[in-house]
Amino acid sequence: MPATMKAAVKLKPAPKSTEVKRVPIPTPRPDEVLIRVRISSICGTDVHIYDWDAWAAARIKPPLIQGHEFAGEIERLGSNVSGLEKGAYVSAEGHIACGRCKMCRTGNAHVCQSVSIIGADRDGAFAEYLTAPASNVIINDDDLPLELATIQDPLGNAVYTVMNANVPGKTVAIFGLGPIGLMALALCRGLAARTVIAIGHRNEYRMSLAKKLRAHHVLRSNESLVEEVMELTSGEGVDEVLDFSGSAEAIQQAIKIVRHAGGIHVLGLFSKPVSFDLSAMVTKGVSIHGIHGRLMYRTWYDMGGILKSGNVDLKPIFTHKFPLDDYNEAMEVMRSGNCGKVAFPMEA
Amino acid sequence: MPATMKAAVKLKPAPKSTEVKRVPIPTPRPDEVLIRVRISSICGTDVHIYDWDAWAAARIKPPLIQGHEFAGEIERLGSNVSGLEKGAYVSAEGHIACGRCKMCRTGNAHVCQSVSIIGADRDGAFAEYLTAPASNVIINDDDLPLELATIQDPLGNAVYTVMNANVPGKTVAIFGLGPIGLMALALCRGLAARTVIAIGHRNEYRMSLAKKLRAHHVLRSNESLVEEVMELTSGEGVDEVLDFSGSAEAIQQAIKIVRHAGGIHVLGLFSKPVSFDLSAMVTKGVSIHGIHGRLMYRTWYDMGGILKSGNVDLKPIFTHKFPLDDYNEAMEVMRSGNCGKVAFPMEA
Amino acid sequence: MPATMKAAVKLKPAPKSTEVKRVPIPTPRPDEVLIRVRISSICGTDVHIYDWDAWAAARIKPPLIQGHEFAGEIERLGSNVSGLEKGAYVSAEGHIACGRCKMCRTGNAHVCQSVSIIGADRDGAFAEYLTAPASNVIINDDDLPLELATIQDPLGNAVYTVMNANVPGKTVAIFGLGPIGLMALALCRGLAARTVIAIGHRNEYRMSLAKKLRAHHVLRSNESLVEEVMELTSGEGVDEVLDFSGSAEAIQQAIKIVRHAGGIHVLGLFSKPVSFDLSAMVTKGVSIHGIHGRLMYRTWYDMGGILKSGNVDLKPIFTHKFPLDDYNEAMEVMRSGNCGKVAFPMEA
Amino acid sequence: MPATMKAAVKLKPAPKSTEVKRVPIPTPRPDEVLIRVRISSICGTDVHIYDWDAWAAARIKPPLIQGHEFAGEIERLGSNVSGLEKGAYVSAEGHIACGRCKMCRTGNAHVCQSVSIIGADRDGAFAEYLTAPASNVIINDDDLPLELATIQDPLGNAVYTVMNANVPGKTVAIFGLGPIGLMALALCRGLAARTVIAIGHRNEYRMSLAKKLRAHHVLRSNESLVEEVMELTSGEGVDEVLDFSGSAEAIQQAIKIVRHAGGIHVLGLFSKPVSFDLSAMVTKGVSIHGIHGRLMYRTWYDMGGILKSGNVDLKPIFTHKFPLDDYNEAMEVMRSGNCGKVAFPMEA
Repeated sequence: MPATMKAAVKLKPAPKSTEVKRVPIPTPRPDEVLIRVRISSICGTDVHIYDWDAWAAARIKPPLIQGHEFAGEIERLGSNVSGLEKGAYVSAEGHIACGRCKMCRTGNAHVCQSVSIIGADRDGAFAEYLTAPASNVIINDDDLPLELATIQDPLGNAVYTVMNANVPGKTVAIFGLGPIGLMALALCRGLAARTVIAIGHRNEYRMSLAKKLRAHHVLRSNESLVEEVMELTSGEGVDEVLDFSGSAEAIQQAIKIVRHAGGIHVLGLFSKPVSFDLSAMVTKGVSIHGIHGRLMYRTWYDMGGILKSGNVDLKPIFTHKFPLDDYNEAMEVMRSGNCGKVAFPMEA
Repeated sequence: MPATMKAAVKLKPAPKSTEVKRVPIPTPRPDEVLIRVRISSICGTDVHIYDWDAWAAARIKPPLIQGHEFAGEIERLGSNVSGLEKGAYVSAEGHIACGRCKMCRTGNAHVCQSVSIIGADRDGAFAEYLTAPASNVIINDDDLPLELATIQDPLGNAVYTVMNANVPGKTVAIFGLGPIGLMALALCRGLAARTVIAIGHRNEYRMSLAKKLRAHHVLRSNESLVEEVMELTSGEGVDEVLDFSGSAEAIQQAIKIVRHAGGIHVLGLFSKPVSFDLSAMVTKGVSIHGIHGRLMYRTWYDMGGILKSGNVDLKPIFTHKFPLDDYNEAMEVMRSGNCGKVAFPMEA
Repeated sequence: MPATMKAAVKLKPAPKSTEVKRVPIPTPRPDEVLIRVRISSICGTDVHIYDWDAWAAARIKPPLIQGHEFAGEIERLGSNVSGLEKGAYVSAEGHIACGRCKMCRTGNAHVCQSVSIIGADRDGAFAEYLTAPASNVIINDDDLPLELATIQDPLGNAVYTVMNANVPGKTVAIFGLGPIGLMALALCRGLAARTVIAIGHRNEYRMSLAKKLRAHHVLRSNESLVEEVMELTSGEGVDEVLDFSGSAEAIQQAIKIVRHAGGIHVLGLFSKPVSFDLSAMVTKGVSIHGIHGRLMYRTWYDMGGILKSGNVDLKPIFTHKFPLDDYNEAMEVMRSGNCGKVAFPMEA
Repeated sequence: MPATMKAAVKLKPAPKSTEVKRVPIPTPRPDEVLIRVRISSICGTDVHIYDWDAWAAARIKPPLIQGHEFAGEIERLGSNVSGLEKGAYVSAEGHIACGRCKMCRTGNAHVCQSVSIIGADRDGAFAEYLTAPASNVIINDDDLPLELATIQDPLGNAVYTVMNANVPGKTVAIFGLGPIGLMALALCRGLAARTVIAIGHRNEYRMSLAKKLRAHHVLRSNESLVEEVMELTSGEGVDEVLDFSGSAEAIQQAIKIVRHAGGIHVLGLFSKPVSFDLSAMVTKGVSIHGIHGRLMYRTWYDMGGILKSGNVDLKPIFTHKFPLDDYNEAMEVMRSGNCGKVAFPMEA
């Protein structure tokens, strides 16, 4: 094994500032494993860090290797690790929970009060190797394609949201057609939702992807949206709304289009307070659920099984691949929005 | 049986305008029963109608006998009614659901899309007799005191909210100390909540009632509230928030004081859109539940059992009684806020 | 409209004893509708009545027109019926609940304590017309094929069982490959179960149908079954067991093959007490759920949506059709077990 | 700190064979803590080991210090332990889960497939000191009396069972009036169950304790039991049954007395297969839940809060205290059944 590896390193607390260079291969701590990366992919969060927005400036400490979406093989085990083997085909949950707080002790590790994140608070997967806590490692089914294996972190967001909405037989509206929204759409179709209404905004590329993923209807979030949805649902509204848009307008429309006793499941984050008709929500008997991360690790087991079922067609989502050397180019594609998922397959 | 009865009749679409006078005793339709009222009580909604606010002006068609909180005895059965008997000691669910819509057919009659309300959309209980659909009638336990029997409609709101929050062992914050908020407080104590924090605003009378009802802490909703609650909960926040205030500020504070993976249960209605930090709700993994009416009729069975347990002390809530002849005076007491529940016991 | 209709009438309290003859068309009561039958199908219960077993002898009062699985058109409305229209394409829930008992009032009408059943306690659908309470009528989607519409009563059993087990991503074992077990298998596949293990006994015909319905594995319920399932699940067991067999041995095996914290969902009925290792169930933290009928009417809405999704392929289940005149021949095919679903399409 | 401690050591694989003697104080491993015991108490399992029954002979490897119910103070922290402090007032969950299996990773650590138990698979609390994994330690509220603190392991069984049955407002039947059954009774009363029916067998002492704990009815499990319960419940049956008896007859009676759509929650273990009317369970739509251990650690948080509420009166359960030197005498009291909880307070 060599001493150094190729990695995309964000060098400075400023936009872009990332260079693909050789750095030392990290050493796993006693409770960690070293993983050889076979593929990684770009999350929206990675773009925020790349762009060095306010959130990134407040949290991130360069130099940093970003990236928390990946699949690879265990290369080395820390001295205290048991139950895992060198060579295992793995991915990892990107949120590292403390394991000791009340949330961690009551099945709510996904909202641990002391979480740290791979590729944000510690070096991540845009490199030939990364280390991760053994407890975060997920063993993939042998026949899981690399493309699917690398997107399990965001797909897990979508699985958690869709399972929370219990979609079989339901009419579902999805706001926000970024990669996670599109994954949720594919999941709803694969889990026998009655009707899936995908709602985009301006991005034609992604609205066209929604059609490829077999949305029953693809609508645009504009003034006539509420009327259109009510017409499509015979005036009754949809059973469940899933929001991946982070748009205040989406929430306002969600309250209007959701049926009585329905549910709204929100993964999107909002740049400022959201104002909406809370009284309508109350008199309709609607619940709004904040969805964060993935249930550790119930969502991962659900996801593994759903992928194995073969019911969910995610192929149209994989639109771009780049060698890691073209890191900056890949980021620009992500920023354009004219893409589904953008991945870095590593040479064998 | 006489042909006429005493009733408080709102005569005109204007504030007050209510006169206690004699009117004909109503005749039950085939699927209805005629009930002799033994006690009735005033709901906040009755004050809105009495005051003739915008909501009342839009919905109510005088002349109207108000009142949906009551207990009495069945006097006469409509021709199609079976399973009920003359003389039975009864109250009634105030919301009349259509029985045919999707909500009614799926256990969600409390949010029926064609509901009508006793004492608002048809004559109610501020009289010696009223009619009600047989399907809405609730048979009271023989030993249920009249005072408790008459408040079951609002108490059912509180029971539904508290059962939805699953309070045993939990730390609960209650916003809004009107009669329903106070009932919820008594229920939380009777169902073994760990700590109950009652949060009032300006009404000293009701904050003092909250103390009598054994709130662990009675706080005032002001700038330091969030800090105070966090200190009382060792920085962790409360498990569940119940809102009966209809105040936007309460919702904003609720998001801050609820713990990760906690719940917010909202019965209050708001006069305009509410703006709050939805992102905080999402990253904390919190759910907000709109609570409307009472589950038909699960809440009524829960309530009957909880009252029978003897665990819940509601006595301090019964503060005022008036003969029906003093209707206007009773309404003024309700408007003052210096009261708990205001009732009209009828002469035997 | 003619005065008489063709009907298969069980004439005597004895095996077979059924004659296809002309009888008067029934008149709907005020709260009922008259339905012109376009298709009906045979339930296992119909065979019990046809064979006049002990259960039938204790309950059924000939003369009787059997049959509760059907689809047709509303021909006439009773005088009190509203919200339905002549010509509507409908089926009906076969269990007529009382609407007044605690079960009916708390969302549990499927276990109403005073239920009566169409085609068992009153005349049913093996005829050109039948009457049914308006409240039991289900309006079918216009594009629902007659073959699917007629089997909704048993399919509803399967939908309730499968939804109760929350199968997406799960490994599911199904005991009993009669029509309802086969429907459950198709549903599990359509709802993205990870792995579906169909377990038959002696009936090769139906084990072969299970393969056509895309079971991942079709096993035989014999001595080596437990070992085989444990091997297929890497020693872990299945997440959920669905039982449609009514076999004590199946329950004993279910306890062994279900994983810790898993669920067993039992629709089958047993001819005598069942003996099994309850301690194993307790230490594994397993729950067993009795599944009876269909949730009124939540299951029907779920079912309508799932059928509309197009995910569930039920075609292989429709194996035989007969004109109503060949009623006795059709019953013999059902008795042989060498069939899926047997239907009586009516001439237009 | 001294080098040796007093401990009750089971010396040989045979009945009794226990001697109170001095042994070395154990040393905590890196992830463990050393706890100074202030009080311990006897579980039924301890009697099985003391008696050396078949289960004990198959599992236990003497020499062993038994005991998993206790409270004490942290004396020393292992080298890797963080988040705990010397002097903290603690108890511990007695089941040590592996932390790595699917059960542990999905919130089901209470049914971990590789569990080991304090005082059974490793030395326990019938001594002046014991070691326990830091992850199993529970910090007690400062004002929790020692008597309550020591019984949290069995009380947790009762809390888990009672919370699973969601008892507020419900009619509950409890089979088995050993210490855990009695605790469940006190919890049902404290959580506002409508009616609590305690069902004993032959033990008058414990039936009398049930009365002290305010059971509404104390019945004897004999031929007329079903009839008596049906009469007490107006022919409807009870909402929920809790079984702590491990008696097949109790389960058979439970199926008969539980209402439609009710629940049966079984903590008891059975010495052989149990035979009952599974068809009745199915047609009533009843669920049976296996309850094992305590939810890690949700039950512990629930329990802490419920104890803090002050609603649950457990005093009558504490009937006997012995110095550890009288270990064999204490075991004989437990074996007699004429006791509630038997504890060993340690000298300060």
